Amino acid sequence: MAERGSQVVLGLDPDPRRLWPVGPASLRSGAPLGPVAAAVLGHCRALIDATAPACVAVKLQLARFEVLGADGWLAMAELVADARRSGLLVIADGKRGDIDVTARAYADALFGGIDTPHGWLDGLGADLVTVNPLMGTDAVEPFITAAREAGAGVLALVRTSNPGAADIEDLGLDGGGTVWERLATMVDELGRSGIGASGLSDVGAVVGATAPGHLPRARELMAHAAFLLPGVGAQGGRVQDLAAAFAPGRAGGLVSASRSIAEAHRSGAEDPATAARAEAERLRESAWELSDRAGASA
Amino acid sequence: MAERGSQVVLGLDPDPRRLWPVGPASLRSGAPLGPVAAAVLGHCRALIDATAPACVAVKLQLARFEVLGADGWLAMAELVADARRSGLLVIADGKRGDIDVTARAYADALFGGIDTPHGWLDGLGADLVTVNPLMGTDAVEPFITAAREAGAGVLALVRTSNPGAADIEDLGLDGGGTVWERLATMVDELGRSGIGASGLSDVGAVVGATAPGHLPRARELMAHAAFLLPGVGAQGGRVQDLAAAFAPGRAGGLVSASRSIAEAHRSGAEDPATAARAEAERLRESAWELSDRAGASA
Repeated sequence: MAERGSQVVLGLDPDPRRLWPVGPASLRSGAPLGPVAAAVLGHCRALIDATAPACVAVKLQLARFEVLGADGWLAMAELVADARRSGLLVIADGKRGDIDVTARAYADALFGGIDTPHGWLDGLGADLVTVNPLMGTDAVEPFITAAREAGAGVLALVRTSNPGAADIEDLGLDGGGTVWERLATMVDELGRSGIGASGLSDVGAVVGATAPGHLPRARELMAHAAFLLPGVGAQGGRVQDLAAAFAPGRAGGLVSASRSIAEAHRSGAEDPATAARAEAERLRESAWELSDRAGASA
Repeated sequence: MAERGSQVVLGLDPDPRRLWPVGPASLRSGAPLGPVAAAVLGHCRALIDATAPACVAVKLQLARFEVLGADGWLAMAELVADARRSGLLVIADGKRGDIDVTARAYADALFGGIDTPHGWLDGLGADLVTVNPLMGTDAVEPFITAAREAGAGVLALVRTSNPGAADIEDLGLDGGGTVWERLATMVDELGRSGIGASGLSDVGAVVGATAPGHLPRARELMAHAAFLLPGVGAQGGRVQDLAAAFAPGRAGGLVSASRSIAEAHRSGAEDPATAARAEAERLRESAWELSDRAGASA
């Protein structure tokens, strides 16, 4: 992040009904893809090409690739390679969570793959994956184990960016605190053994940018967690409200934006790539400045 | 279920390190698959062939197919067709949950597909999908909307079968009750508008068979929900403890077993198919008899 001067995560959340028109260069593909997957891949490639210098990572919204069927996995694998070539980390945003053996299978799929008696299976090669901790620690731990084997990390949902987050995550507990605060404590405990030289753990948290009032408390409960902060832009979150995320340093927050970058051209006269580049750079600059001030005052 | 005299769900949860050895007939495939996916497909096909008459549905554990990459989706599509030919319903067990537009994309992938300006995308064609409700009602509602368009249903996690379920789901709330009881109330409320002639709703619940002490209370809170009851067998759950699930009738409970069927041969001298068939039939008979008594006393 220091090298790129950026905390911006380019969300790849391609709605097949709202893709950029792209030229043949972006439609190149190593695997033969159907027309929808080819268009999705081209759109995502053009987005990466336009915005990579302002970003530190891409976040693949797995649902948008799952809907492409088998082609979706092929498209994701190509985008992971593209992101690497552009010097970007890869976040697989699937919010998976299940019993132990199942969680491990998801982790093998998204991180480093697995050897079997019938041959080797490649993993997606993600650097970070999002997980859903509703089912408890034993649904999260297999992801952490696999992440450590792969030199990767985990981001657990703590307080999400959607309005419905209030339904369960904000419920008050009989011993005090809320469900999301308990999730935060779980993240902190699971991450204690994975704190690196940076002071950050390999177990981070998803904390929505749409309810920034929660951020100081989240940071208090999770001093060593990197926060993935989705919801900037289309969902209403604003970079300037995210200072608490950066208390442990500039790498404390990953500012994730999808639609506000991909659809920036819809509010002006610029072409999609130019508008996206400008929006990503605007986010980068405001987050980087904010983290400078936040770090200095922490 | 009445027609088949069964509430048994065959869990297809193929560990690539523990597959049945299968012959060329089961290895037939419409699509060219890599060796691991071909072996997984053959194993699942043989399992369906062996046990279908005793079952009412198959449950695809999506993690086991995701780890196969692009081939996983192709294998699942073939298994859905196989299940249909054997008269079985299909449950896609992915425990997805995300913000509105993302949840809808997952639902399109798993149910009926979606039309796009670039062409049609097939969905998996599942009859039921499992969803994770941590993120609240707006993360679940898009699945219900899509399910109703497809003539399908949704099963939301309420109280899962793993030991870690106690970590979050069992937390006590400051207004009384627990997190899982609040999830149960959510399921009941979301399902009210989907109660059919059977008295059951198209919004059901996942209630682990490993903690059957919760079942009477779960049934009290969700009078119209079908319960998917995982955890019978390898995870320690027993059919005879599940009576409360069947209070609204024989279709009130779906008894899901994976490893106890697929690995039945490991505790005896029978071949895998014979042992699996016997175990599925044993489960079918005990659940059917139990539901008869439970229905009569309800």
